[in-house]
Amino acid sequence: MAVGKPTFPDMHTVAGFRLGTGSAGIKKPGRKDLVIMAFDEGATVAACFTKNAFCAAPVLIAREHLQQAAPRYLVTNTGNANAGTGADGLDNARRVCRALAEHAGCQPEEVLPYSTGVIGEPLPVDKILTALPATLCACTEDGWADAGSGIMTTDTRPKGASLRCEIDGQTVTITGISKGAGMIKPNMATMLAYVATDAGVAQPLLQDMLGAAVERSFNRITVDGDTSTNDAVTLVATGAAGVEITAANRNLFQQALDAVLIELAQAIIRDGEGATKFVTVAVAGGASVQECLKVAYAVAESPLVKTALFASDPNWGRILAAIGRAGVENLVVEKVSVKLGDLLIAENGARAASYTEAAGQAVMNGEEILIAIDLGRGDVTETVWTTDFSHEYVTINAEYRT
Amino acid sequence: MAVGKPTFPDMHTVAGFRLGTGSAGIKKPGRKDLVIMAFDEGATVAACFTKNAFCAAPVLIAREHLQQAAPRYLVTNTGNANAGTGADGLDNARRVCRALAEHAGCQPEEVLPYSTGVIGEPLPVDKILTALPATLCACTEDGWADAGSGIMTTDTRPKGASLRCEIDGQTVTITGISKGAGMIKPNMATMLAYVATDAGVAQPLLQDMLGAAVERSFNRITVDGDTSTNDAVTLVATGAAGVEITAANRNLFQQALDAVLIELAQAIIRDGEGATKFVTVAVAGGASVQECLKVAYAVAESPLVKTALFASDPNWGRILAAIGRAGVENLVVEKVSVKLGDLLIAENGARAASYTEAAGQAVMNGEEILIAIDLGRGDVTETVWTTDFSHEYVTINAEYRT
Repeated sequence: MAVGKPTFPDMHTVAGFRLGTGSAGIKKPGRKDLVIMAFDEGATVAACFTKNAFCAAPVLIAREHLQQAAPRYLVTNTGNANAGTGADGLDNARRVCRALAEHAGCQPEEVLPYSTGVIGEPLPVDKILTALPATLCACTEDGWADAGSGIMTTDTRPKGASLRCEIDGQTVTITGISKGAGMIKPNMATMLAYVATDAGVAQPLLQDMLGAAVERSFNRITVDGDTSTNDAVTLVATGAAGVEITAANRNLFQQALDAVLIELAQAIIRDGEGATKFVTVAVAGGASVQECLKVAYAVAESPLVKTALFASDPNWGRILAAIGRAGVENLVVEKVSVKLGDLLIAENGARAASYTEAAGQAVMNGEEILIAIDLGRGDVTETVWTTDFSHEYVTINAEYRT
Repeated sequence: MAVGKPTFPDMHTVAGFRLGTGSAGIKKPGRKDLVIMAFDEGATVAACFTKNAFCAAPVLIAREHLQQAAPRYLVTNTGNANAGTGADGLDNARRVCRALAEHAGCQPEEVLPYSTGVIGEPLPVDKILTALPATLCACTEDGWADAGSGIMTTDTRPKGASLRCEIDGQTVTITGISKGAGMIKPNMATMLAYVATDAGVAQPLLQDMLGAAVERSFNRITVDGDTSTNDAVTLVATGAAGVEITAANRNLFQQALDAVLIELAQAIIRDGEGATKFVTVAVAGGASVQECLKVAYAVAESPLVKTALFASDPNWGRILAAIGRAGVENLVVEKVSVKLGDLLIAENGARAASYTEAAGQAVMNGEEILIAIDLGRGDVTETVWTTDFSHEYVTINAEYRT
């Protein structure tokens, strides 16, 4: 199940950034499960990784390599997460980097590894090594669509976003792909995103802007409140467009980057496990970002709110109760209001006098639902995106390994 | 569904504490939905209420009355939570207290009201007033079993616990009942517990001991991470046994009180919505209570762990991932070990060499499951109890109002 039509956008190529997709046969013979991304010397790279203490071997190696050299290659396999694999897992991730470096003529430290799939099983490294040369040869600037499919695991559709904007009179392109269908599925999935731009951006500024964009996109989505051992978002700036991003023009670039990352993040929610609804939880009138997020996540992650959404039930009591337990100090419930779309459902600590079940039902029958909460105590707003909680979610996660 | 056999224990009566159960016909004619508890002057009362900011009218009134007088009567209705009902709800709760006070010959402030059931609908106060006199007349010291059934909503079975211990050469009794099948179900349920003892305990000490016992029992259970608008635990000490609890003998009493509250709390988990497993998550080796609880709740509330439990799937990767995202600073994953029952499943950041799927499967096939985690960084231990996450949970919560 997934929300909305599966549409993969036209992807603008990014000069200097090439993608190749191949098949190592990790889980099934012939399945596309290996993706290499290559870019020219001089490109800068920024990355954000999972904060999970049990992070996977490729995350540890990628972090280490980023300290040692400017990357030239990204290599991603699906079908095996190389997580929970101890010292052997680290060795295997290094072997993949070494082998790709030999074929490509660079240093192993210039390769960043990524893995997604089953946790706790040894990485079938020989299969990957065998498939590396052909996948490397396949690298081309118009390889985005194939790569979008090549990084999928239980995703039901590839996810892409691409836009062009004008900065300093030049056209700048930002194009990316993402994968993931739960915030965590340690046995078979992970959230991964790869974004490239032809703008030139110094590494510290690139990292700074990526961090800000991730905070507004991938850090604002939740399927089930869990985070993965392998999550990673990587941004490469090739500089081929001849535009340098600086303090003077960074806002324009940041806006465009935010838009691409939000589209990629929302695509993960639309394809969330068992999702039948795409739900926006918007909290306004907060005194701080932190309290807005507490309320937004309490609502977005409440199993009771999520099962009511699945049932298209305008169960406003569950939303009020989730707000009430979010831990906002000295919340004055009489000042809180809640809307479903444009429909006022609760105010003054009780159901709105104007509210009718029929009107609430009409909103809840939709596939895209806005829950708009006003805390009535400040000017801060925050938004998170989530899904409902369906029988299919239980089926997928209870029966995944059987 | 529920875990284990439905057994209601033999309930020792508590001298000076009487319970009457009646029928107000709030949701269905003839259903037992009204319970009055009465106790003699000189009894002391302690109570812990929900911390939810959207708490129900009876919770607000009960808190107010506790400030004004020593209670003599507790009155509980099911079928309507009197929550999300604004100023009318407060008036209605007061009317119930006033009416009972008139019949009983006490002050309205000496009555504490409790409600559980549908949220957001007006309390049918006239039905309750009509049924008060007969219910009051029915009050008797051996009314525990009827009252245990009378406070139920979607519970599949009444829940009771009763024990006797010897303190200062005298027999002291502690007996209680509880209800609830989700930590929250704002439309139809709430966690309520009433416990009485014939020990004599000064009110501040009674409140202190109740707070400690609740922290080890009702604050250590979770079905879905939600808390209700109406939760309340009330403890009455009649003093009829002629034993006074003081600093010298309080530890004995606290142990017995803890045991009764833990049994009542665990009974709620065993009767949890859609529960097919009773799960103990024990975290040892922590540096602080807070970090042990963070880990225990991250595991106990992870939808992915809970769906794996439902499937009897020894999916250790999900347990590791939940530990890893719990927010314990500087967690050394190589020092963490995880057992299922007595079976070591993970150590050194990976699956234990001795582990086999068959052995894990054998443990998971049981109805009562222990997940024992050692963080390897201190001496603190904490335990929480939870259920699995089943299709029936989704069904119950998606279809409740339809």
